[in-house]
Amino acid sequence: MDVQVTTLDNGLRVVTDLMPNVETASVGAWIDVGTRHEKASVNGISHLLEHMAFKGTKRRSAYDIAVEIEAVGGYLNAYTSRENTAYYAKVLKNDTPLAINMIADILQNSTMDAEELERERAVIIQEIHQSYDTPDDIVFDYFQEAAYPGQAMGRPVLGSADLVRSMDRETVLNYMNSHYSGPRMVFAAAGNLDHDHIVKMVEKEFSHLPQISELEQQTPNYTGGDFRDNRDLEQVHLILGVDGVSYSDDDFYAASVLSTLFGGGMSSRLFQEIREKRGLVYSIYAFLSSYTDGGVFGVYAGTGAEEAGQILPLITNEFTKLSEGIQEDEISRARAQLKASILMSLESTSSRCEQMARQISIYGRPITVEETVEHIDAVNEKSLKDVAARLLSSATTLSAVGPCSNLGDRPSFN
Amino acid sequence: MDVQVTTLDNGLRVVTDLMPNVETASVGAWIDVGTRHEKASVNGISHLLEHMAFKGTKRRSAYDIAVEIEAVGGYLNAYTSRENTAYYAKVLKNDTPLAINMIADILQNSTMDAEELERERAVIIQEIHQSYDTPDDIVFDYFQEAAYPGQAMGRPVLGSADLVRSMDRETVLNYMNSHYSGPRMVFAAAGNLDHDHIVKMVEKEFSHLPQISELEQQTPNYTGGDFRDNRDLEQVHLILGVDGVSYSDDDFYAASVLSTLFGGGMSSRLFQEIREKRGLVYSIYAFLSSYTDGGVFGVYAGTGAEEAGQILPLITNEFTKLSEGIQEDEISRARAQLKASILMSLESTSSRCEQMARQISIYGRPITVEETVEHIDAVNEKSLKDVAARLLSSATTLSAVGPCSNLGDRPSFN
Repeated sequence: MDVQVTTLDNGLRVVTDLMPNVETASVGAWIDVGTRHEKASVNGISHLLEHMAFKGTKRRSAYDIAVEIEAVGGYLNAYTSRENTAYYAKVLKNDTPLAINMIADILQNSTMDAEELERERAVIIQEIHQSYDTPDDIVFDYFQEAAYPGQAMGRPVLGSADLVRSMDRETVLNYMNSHYSGPRMVFAAAGNLDHDHIVKMVEKEFSHLPQISELEQQTPNYTGGDFRDNRDLEQVHLILGVDGVSYSDDDFYAASVLSTLFGGGMSSRLFQEIREKRGLVYSIYAFLSSYTDGGVFGVYAGTGAEEAGQILPLITNEFTKLSEGIQEDEISRARAQLKASILMSLESTSSRCEQMARQISIYGRPITVEETVEHIDAVNEKSLKDVAARLLSSATTLSAVGPCSNLGDRPSFN
Repeated sequence: MDVQVTTLDNGLRVVTDLMPNVETASVGAWIDVGTRHEKASVNGISHLLEHMAFKGTKRRSAYDIAVEIEAVGGYLNAYTSRENTAYYAKVLKNDTPLAINMIADILQNSTMDAEELERERAVIIQEIHQSYDTPDDIVFDYFQEAAYPGQAMGRPVLGSADLVRSMDRETVLNYMNSHYSGPRMVFAAAGNLDHDHIVKMVEKEFSHLPQISELEQQTPNYTGGDFRDNRDLEQVHLILGVDGVSYSDDDFYAASVLSTLFGGGMSSRLFQEIREKRGLVYSIYAFLSSYTDGGVFGVYAGTGAEEAGQILPLITNEFTKLSEGIQEDEISRARAQLKASILMSLESTSSRCEQMARQISIYGRPITVEETVEHIDAVNEKSLKDVAARLLSSATTLSAVGPCSNLGDRPSFN
């Protein structure tokens, strides 16, 4: 690993990872702006802004943006999450300057044309409807809302059709100018690149970022809850979860190992007990979603209307068994899975680029593989039992979509 | 590229791709057996067999299989398509012998335990229900059925719940023993590996493949058709398509370039006309599905119930415009996209492994990047107009799921 970081005068942090043997490069800007920074009246604006960034700048029309990157065989894409917005490109290495120039252009010189905004609202409303039609997608939005009711952290990334219709050009432009500042942004690049050269380019291209003060950010307050959308589907898609850990929580690595042995693969407890022994599901897995100041830990499962009555007691039983002791072979297997997945991800320029950007954003510095491995190796039965006890002391959150009538009450672990 | 192929005495072809700078390895067996080789009475058996391969061998229980690969942080997975079944693993390079041993074991020593079969049926029925609940997934099964009515090529990979319930241990075991022979199998490995060493291991491990004669395989007869599943959803998910080209068709590369400029990215005609100019969809794209002796070419789109009346005439208009001339800049952009995507895929051991296996299976030899690039570069306006005229001379196939009442008649291009 050869990771270098430089902080520019405008606060933008530039991080590069040299990979001497690759022909492609991945670059991108990760911004600490997402759904949690939105007032209820503009829920969905981070995502709307992300779409509008592609709709033309002072120098490029929306069509130019699409054409220029694809003319060199590259791609330019973006996503919005609850804490971040990312704009990233993957190109052949000689096209890196173009990719940097384009990302800088769409982040600083966006015109937010009113006609383009009209059309893009319609596209996002289609996206909202597509998400609604995808049960194993929408059930995560329901879970988030039940876990953090009435809070920005609980609201959907896409917003609602009505809110998307209500936001005008001025509002979106103001949101961009008051949120996309240098200190909230990390520019990352991975490939056969030279750090100083990248820093020089980024410095030149990102000279028009707004100077703004800190954003308001409320610490999320997990309460737990129950959200069911009774629909005529073949399966009930459900999530049962609890209050989790933040990225910088002392229990973060223990929670990661716990999540892996609980429901991270074919040999995990949930997969073995609920799919392999009982055939009740095709998909079941545990997940750990962390934020800078909180997180959730949960289990997703999809099962039939008839089987639905059995599934919650079974998942609950597996949750409570976590406090009863964990075998050494389960722990070492989960450690091996986490470590191998890190090594596997190192072979992709896009994974490295994103990992570095996220580390700088979360921890303020790159984290070496060795350091992560040390943390994973330090997890033992004691730390796992401690984190399990902590998770089980939380109120539960249940969300479900599909034929819910047999589902029963939301279980409680305490 | 350093690709080498060796054919073993039992007909199994072993192909390796040396990647000196990587720490992981991908290996797998690709077998020329899939849904198209199934009689109607056992539709879904290739996929059921793929599941049962993980359910225990003479040496390993189902649990052992899960545990052994995950204990070294690797993963072992499989998929079934209309022409192929693949079993593949990704591991850290020192664990390559284990991965080869495990794949060989599950392909030759499977016990097909009757109790395991009972449970696995239930899992697959959940998988069938999950697929039914995912509109942008099931619409592809409907399309296939309408394009190839009453034929093995038109039937779903998963089969039906009733058929999955009906197949017994003997039937599955016989299917395996009569289909999984050496000459129908390619073993591929990509990573920092030695060809001769891999060949030696594969030769030793795969010494019990059945000796069987050729399988019956009917040439698919594309007829076109119409399949609509009127459901209460937010969006109509639809596919409009035509008869396509096989992998070895002279028009294959022209069809690939055409598909890319038609609906392969942000700058493509469909994306620009239907999403960017009109805001009617979030997702729209063209696809080319090829087989060894046929194929389909189509467009997927998801739109609202109200917008559904506009979408078919618009997609039809874009189809017919393909015969009217194609600009040089569109062609060169599509060429660049295809070539860059090949170069990007070379950086992943799993992509290389799968690509090699598929090439050996389809063409009987590895295809160099240079050769593919030459084919792509040889595509010009004339060959594109020719392939467009050919595609437009086909009967159309329409499939749709969602609120279909505004959708209108299936369009015809001739």
